[in-house]
Amino acid sequence: MKKTIGILGGMGPLATADLFQKIVALTAAGSDGEHIRIYIDNNPAIPDRTAAILNGGPDPLPAMRDSLRKLEACGADCILMPCNTAYHFLPRLQGLTDVPFLSMPDTAAAACRIRFPGQTAAVLATTGALAAGLYQAALERERVPFLLPEEAEQAALMQVIYGGVKAGAEPERYRAELTDVINRLAARGADYFVLACTELPLAFQLLGLPQPAVDPTAELAKSAIRFCGYSLKP
Amino acid sequence: MKKTIGILGGMGPLATADLFQKIVALTAAGSDGEHIRIYIDNNPAIPDRTAAILNGGPDPLPAMRDSLRKLEACGADCILMPCNTAYHFLPRLQGLTDVPFLSMPDTAAAACRIRFPGQTAAVLATTGALAAGLYQAALERERVPFLLPEEAEQAALMQVIYGGVKAGAEPERYRAELTDVINRLAARGADYFVLACTELPLAFQLLGLPQPAVDPTAELAKSAIRFCGYSLKP
Repeated sequence: MKKTIGILGGMGPLATADLFQKIVALTAAGSDGEHIRIYIDNNPAIPDRTAAILNGGPDPLPAMRDSLRKLEACGADCILMPCNTAYHFLPRLQGLTDVPFLSMPDTAAAACRIRFPGQTAAVLATTGALAAGLYQAALERERVPFLLPEEAEQAALMQVIYGGVKAGAEPERYRAELTDVINRLAARGADYFVLACTELPLAFQLLGLPQPAVDPTAELAKSAIRFCGYSLKP
Repeated sequence: MKKTIGILGGMGPLATADLFQKIVALTAAGSDGEHIRIYIDNNPAIPDRTAAILNGGPDPLPAMRDSLRKLEACGADCILMPCNTAYHFLPRLQGLTDVPFLSMPDTAAAACRIRFPGQTAAVLATTGALAAGLYQAALERERVPFLLPEEAEQAALMQVIYGGVKAGAEPERYRAELTDVINRLAARGADYFVLACTELPLAFQLLGLPQPAVDPTAELAKSAIRFCGYSLKP
């Protein structure tokens, strides 16, 4: 029996559409009927995860639980979240349901180990995700060497994510800021980039950046396709 | 009180992702929280609508009703279908629920009248949608002059839709077929094209076709944004 996907979305909406599109594009299917059934709750009312982790901002759990209940009622067999920072709340969320969450940081870290053996990753993530240590822990478990942005670089990256992609700004308005962060990390020894905020694969694609990168959204999509009993497009 | 959207999707999955992406991209929002709550059931098990209309294929109504019930239970305030042919079943679907459907053919026909006054449209649609007369009726109500593909052109167009876009083929494999249909219609007097199958805006975009066109998916997205009480991106 093939399984279905539930996407606890809205964090952010563009990243939710990106995850959905990637699942469809990466599924081996010759017609509509061979695709996966996917339930999505794009719930932009979920409070900002980074603000909750760093500054005591509103707790996102109640709104996330509301979405979770809706996806459960639809009959989702697994839950995906198109927001890396949201995985900080995974232990509490998983305690609320028997439906398994698939972990984006774990899936992405495994992809780093397999695709770039022995090479050094640079983790591009929100300050909230870094403070929560989500990617650091996942990469350490996979024994992947990595480095992180310095404070000023991290501030510039947050500006790209919040003032750029999430605000729907023209990509050219944040090209210089993002390439500067990337070049500095490469100069310090980064061989490739983990785009560990779901807005960043969008930014890389819109700007046509050529640097080698792991896209956790695409890795999560592939992991969900396999979980549901479907094949990846060759 | 702002409203929410339900997308009765899976017809097809790429078109569903496209509608979702267009709603997000066209909403005036400076942060995640200013976007619309959207519930999606991407249900690829809904039988083919053209086959049901033309050849007595399996009735799509039961599967559509299942999706409709799930979207209702989530609390959707309106229902959108990213499949023009599916609107043939609208009277029966609307009879099943008090939640209003927004009509893609009606919205697109109004956009034709406003954007191309007095000019002649060519309707590119599935054979099922044409047999059901959906766009012909909507365009006549708006007094928009239009012409339709001839039989061989229509067969080529169906090959682009089913053997190309829905099958996930490389766009270059259907470029010649699609441009040939377009050129023939332009030679017969078409001033612009109504991309009245949701796979066609994807094909036009992937191939970078420059012909003036009305994209019913984008028009439906704009209509839903307004219905929900949000503003369009300037």
